[in-house]
Amino acid sequence: MTDAKPARQRSLRDHNLALALGLVSTASSPLSRARIAALSGLTRATASALVEELLEAGLVCEVALPRTARSGRPATGIALSAGGLGGLGLEINVDYLAATVVDLTGAVVEQVVAEGDQRGRDPVEVLAALRSLALATQKAARPVRVVGAALALPGLLRDRRLLLAPNLGWRDVDIRLGRGLEPALDNEANYAALAEVTTVRQSFVHVSGEIGIGMGIVVAGNVYRGTRGWSGEIGHLTVEHDGPRCSCGARGCLEVFAGQEAIARHGAERAGTALGTALAGVLNVLDLNTVVLGGCYAGMASALIPAIQHELRDRVLWAGLEAPVVEVAVHGRSAAVLGAARSVVTRVLSSPRDLIVTGFR
Amino acid sequence: MTDAKPARQRSLRDHNLALALGLVSTASSPLSRARIAALSGLTRATASALVEELLEAGLVCEVALPRTARSGRPATGIALSAGGLGGLGLEINVDYLAATVVDLTGAVVEQVVAEGDQRGRDPVEVLAALRSLALATQKAARPVRVVGAALALPGLLRDRRLLLAPNLGWRDVDIRLGRGLEPALDNEANYAALAEVTTVRQSFVHVSGEIGIGMGIVVAGNVYRGTRGWSGEIGHLTVEHDGPRCSCGARGCLEVFAGQEAIARHGAERAGTALGTALAGVLNVLDLNTVVLGGCYAGMASALIPAIQHELRDRVLWAGLEAPVVEVAVHGRSAAVLGAARSVVTRVLSSPRDLIVTGFR
Repeated sequence: MTDAKPARQRSLRDHNLALALGLVSTASSPLSRARIAALSGLTRATASALVEELLEAGLVCEVALPRTARSGRPATGIALSAGGLGGLGLEINVDYLAATVVDLTGAVVEQVVAEGDQRGRDPVEVLAALRSLALATQKAARPVRVVGAALALPGLLRDRRLLLAPNLGWRDVDIRLGRGLEPALDNEANYAALAEVTTVRQSFVHVSGEIGIGMGIVVAGNVYRGTRGWSGEIGHLTVEHDGPRCSCGARGCLEVFAGQEAIARHGAERAGTALGTALAGVLNVLDLNTVVLGGCYAGMASALIPAIQHELRDRVLWAGLEAPVVEVAVHGRSAAVLGAARSVVTRVLSSPRDLIVTGFR
Repeated sequence: MTDAKPARQRSLRDHNLALALGLVSTASSPLSRARIAALSGLTRATASALVEELLEAGLVCEVALPRTARSGRPATGIALSAGGLGGLGLEINVDYLAATVVDLTGAVVEQVVAEGDQRGRDPVEVLAALRSLALATQKAARPVRVVGAALALPGLLRDRRLLLAPNLGWRDVDIRLGRGLEPALDNEANYAALAEVTTVRQSFVHVSGEIGIGMGIVVAGNVYRGTRGWSGEIGHLTVEHDGPRCSCGARGCLEVFAGQEAIARHGAERAGTALGTALAGVLNVLDLNTVVLGGCYAGMASALIPAIQHELRDRVLWAGLEAPVVEVAVHGRSAAVLGAARSVVTRVLSSPRDLIVTGFR
């Protein structure tokens, strides 16, 4: 469908600002103003004006370029302002709290993990502890200035309420961190998947073994969130119709066979078969052909992959045309908090105008 | 990510052309030029120039509006040119061929279904029969002028090849209909889902019982196609790990329990339980809460729905927060060919410039 508003000069300018910043952020080395103009198709004057705006906002910086052979004059390049502005990622999980600051290049500036079982703890107390962790991490990350925050949570959200987090034992909890800290919220599996996106890996499911099982779905570099952000609940796919009871109340869910605690009791092979069967269904439905194993699955991948691949080969309709690929995640347990922090940076880079106008968080 | 090109004046004009046409196509009654200007935020002069272009292309027509009380002058309204241009939908299915022409309002102008088992028939012969059907239907639809065609196929496609259609028994078939007919191609389940989109039903899965089981996934009005258009293969979701052998070679697929032939042998109750279990997994993964039952399921919905709802209530993680909804499809067996025809119209309405410049098909 067509957007229900005309393309105006204003949005044209915002579009071009994001375009110029996008060129700088994806370039392998600093770009001259002339190069930005050439790559974008904009005039030199327009490109220079946009660069001025980005410099003033602290999003880019000037760096010396090597003298060119042709003119012999020293040139000035434009690069992302590494170490200038940053995004704060936060996470509440079943057995830890975490906070990470990344700069505009996505590099980690500061990361703190506070281990400890959160099950049954009073949510108010947990949120206060997370606030302290957030403020301390933000302080430790100086001189990087945090311009926004995002919080990863292990459950179903609506607006600012965590409606249901079976493994935390939380229901309908108001998620507020207090003055000066109002992070964007999303399911941890969505953020974790974001952390596993690379220039060559753009479409995949990221399956993360923890107390529960999280799955993030990425299509062409974007997280598929569903209609309410509740997508990816692979842990509650039925593997055995009349199987053992799950924490969610249903019978025979994948979590009962392949959650962290089930693996500790029954080993990886049974888990791999169950996981492969459920994943075959997921690939058949989503038409994605890469599975990335994260969380506790990353460390036991060699024990899981043969059984998973066996089921995928047998059960994915198109496995004979294109073989499904199973890979190991890069980030392990820190994926969700890192993805949350990077989501802040991605938002700044794709909508720099919002930062300039409102200083959004 | 930002588009890797600047927003130029040309694309601005194309955007506004589509915007004006979009306003006309979604309005409940003809719009004056002044109203188009007001709704779009464009100047009167710009809006009038765009309307002239649309009139010349035959996309809209002028109709008399009632005299306004204020000026007393007769006004001219702009409406979609019903009965002027149209889209041709085609379908090859296991037990029939079909062709449909719809006009720009989506109304069916002509529809022909040729019953007959296509299994094991020579693809060349089937494609020739479809060509004859297409040309005859196009002729019968006159004076509506067909500006493009789309063909629905029951299998996995790559470019213009049908790689695998297990229920037709076809493998790697080149899909060409000959001179003057080069339809867009997609899986029939994707087109069928498109036909079930309404102004109030924008996100859902459409599950269609046939010899196989097709599923189309619609999110916010758009079909989710996956990375290769192979999404929605719910028929090959595992319901029973060591169950009976399926046509695809795997064991215990949903199709074995809930395909048309399984229902004929074992009845609807077993099918409903299997379908509900598989659909619960689909809703958990996709975060959609409406299921639309189509194909042969539409006619036996009352026998299927209790068992489906039972499984959804038990197995969808968020069923206690928002109850999943099961509805019956509007279009039954003609959904895919109708959706294919409408996809042509949707393309014309969203990119009228392409029609004007190239007369795309």
